[in-house]
Amino acid sequence: MKQLSTNRRDFISTTVSAGVAAGLAQGGFFSAPTYANENKKLGFALVGLGGLATNQIAPGLLTSAHCKLTAIVTGTPEKEKKWADKYGIGRDHIYNYESFDKIASDDSVDVIYIVLPNSMHAEYTIRAAKAGKHVLCEKPMANTAADCRDMIAACKAADRKLAVGYRCQYEPLHLKSMEMAHNKELGAIKMIEAGFGFKIGDPTQWRLKKKLAGGGALMDVGIYALQACRCLLREEPTMITAQETKTDAVKFAEVDESITWLMKFPSGVLAYCSTSYNFNGLNRFNAFTENGFIRMDPAYSYTNNRMETSKGKVELPQQDQFATEMDEFAKCILENKPSKVAGEEGLKDLLAIEAIYKSMETRTTVTVQS
Amino acid sequence: MKQLSTNRRDFISTTVSAGVAAGLAQGGFFSAPTYANENKKLGFALVGLGGLATNQIAPGLLTSAHCKLTAIVTGTPEKEKKWADKYGIGRDHIYNYESFDKIASDDSVDVIYIVLPNSMHAEYTIRAAKAGKHVLCEKPMANTAADCRDMIAACKAADRKLAVGYRCQYEPLHLKSMEMAHNKELGAIKMIEAGFGFKIGDPTQWRLKKKLAGGGALMDVGIYALQACRCLLREEPTMITAQETKTDAVKFAEVDESITWLMKFPSGVLAYCSTSYNFNGLNRFNAFTENGFIRMDPAYSYTNNRMETSKGKVELPQQDQFATEMDEFAKCILENKPSKVAGEEGLKDLLAIEAIYKSMETRTTVTVQS
Repeated sequence: MKQLSTNRRDFISTTVSAGVAAGLAQGGFFSAPTYANENKKLGFALVGLGGLATNQIAPGLLTSAHCKLTAIVTGTPEKEKKWADKYGIGRDHIYNYESFDKIASDDSVDVIYIVLPNSMHAEYTIRAAKAGKHVLCEKPMANTAADCRDMIAACKAADRKLAVGYRCQYEPLHLKSMEMAHNKELGAIKMIEAGFGFKIGDPTQWRLKKKLAGGGALMDVGIYALQACRCLLREEPTMITAQETKTDAVKFAEVDESITWLMKFPSGVLAYCSTSYNFNGLNRFNAFTENGFIRMDPAYSYTNNRMETSKGKVELPQQDQFATEMDEFAKCILENKPSKVAGEEGLKDLLAIEAIYKSMETRTTVTVQS
Repeated sequence: MKQLSTNRRDFISTTVSAGVAAGLAQGGFFSAPTYANENKKLGFALVGLGGLATNQIAPGLLTSAHCKLTAIVTGTPEKEKKWADKYGIGRDHIYNYESFDKIASDDSVDVIYIVLPNSMHAEYTIRAAKAGKHVLCEKPMANTAADCRDMIAACKAADRKLAVGYRCQYEPLHLKSMEMAHNKELGAIKMIEAGFGFKIGDPTQWRLKKKLAGGGALMDVGIYALQACRCLLREEPTMITAQETKTDAVKFAEVDESITWLMKFPSGVLAYCSTSYNFNGLNRFNAFTENGFIRMDPAYSYTNNRMETSKGKVELPQQDQFATEMDEFAKCILENKPSKVAGEEGLKDLLAIEAIYKSMETRTTVTVQS
């Protein structure tokens, strides 16, 4: 890992860690900083240069405090020069899926960010770990819980960190919602409603192919609603019941179009949730509490999310969600701390997702595996 | 039935039928009014003088155009004088549950409004029909679909009309929501979320006793969310899946505390719903459409409901929901027209409710009986 230039101002100006930043701004009262590598930027390799990598993650890397794009992995030759020119990536740091494993000897790469279709997450996470790199993997972590377990095991064996791209777990309004929920500021949560969906376009895209995506709306966006429930409650669902509908059997021949599902949590809280690839406007959670409510709508957008509680609207400075997610992972690596979005977190979502699919198939209430 | 005094102005001033009123206001262009008995007020007997009868229905009768309170039925002797004095009801028009059947010869009574605990709806509806009276019965229509069928049959045999107290089906914002939904003003509905609940007080009340209430939150208020879905879609659910929770096993020893449930409709629309007796603030529906949304929150209150669509807020003049419900039933009787909230409508809700309870018990997705 190379030491890369980031001055103090750059670091402080980020919103990654207000506490650390405040301490430094006030003249470094940190007598024994745990955050020893504050000037360090970790090198990221992006694997899969689709829309998310192009429009969100690469720009996020440019504004991040502790990360920089140092390598790319793509199966599309025409993307190589474009990205190399735009991000100043040398020929030696450009890989395709055949040459991928050579990344092991690329010292510019500390972290491999897997932005591939879902079905490829497991394979490339495991290969990345074997190449000695830390892994940040987009959600859903994999197509199956079994794959998640293999990924966790591979990273553990290689002594590399693994995190899942759960950007909302760093989004200020989500954090504030969770804080209010956990502190019972409006009393304990009694019930949650959550849903995320959108009308999907191009019918030829990989997200609509079972083999690549593993599933449809639920795997892609329903997972956000699931995460919101789990994070607000800090509990895992024990019983899941689901229904699905398919009104466009051509477009959704291979994957789920719309799903509604119910979850029961150990505390007794019920959640009722939804997801769809067939309409816009579903993007929210509502936590009903003893004395009021906490809600976000929109809740899962990259920008302009809105939060309201029974005490009033909550507005907080926004930050690039991907930059924050990557910086937080970089900090975990630099400080050798566990990530709150480690592989185990991704596995928990897949266990719930598998229960949802099983409930749809069996038309029964399913006990979630652990 | 006696002809009671209502002048033209009184009739026109009501908001019962804007079309009829406008016609009359413009000088009676109704050459052959179908509404022949416009000056008529039907006599109502209230059976069960609890909170709803006292605070909503009796005041509603005072402002109604076509109804008046002419008799009461109560098992509580101290209520007799109080009501007699307040509403000018003669001794001959006061009944208890033993003398109830004598109401058959009370010509002041055209309609019997059953406001008893749920388990008594069937018996008193059938006795009222046998007494030759039309019946308006509070929701839920009965504890079982079988009882609903018996009630329908009894009223049919007696050639009397039967309607269920679904006040929201006359509420202007609900009517506007349904109109926009049915006309596809924002495109077809793709999904619905709906819920209604409140934190129930007095632990000794009949609503918490299985024998009297038949069930808990679902029977009492969840039914509104169920109705909203059915009315917005004008379809009956075919598959139902549900979960329940009981966090207070003492208070809710006999009836359901909180339930979440899923419904699939023939058009493929999914609804996800909730109800509770254990927290406040759940009072809404959200219809997600092809091009936007229609929502109400609060949706099921007696006053101050709010409606919003993706085109903006909708505000409409409010009217007493109970007066309107009773006036509309009176019109059906006077004009010998079918009621849109006839017994068959109540039966459909009970069929869905029975499927919800069955799903909870069997932990399976249940096909709704018809």
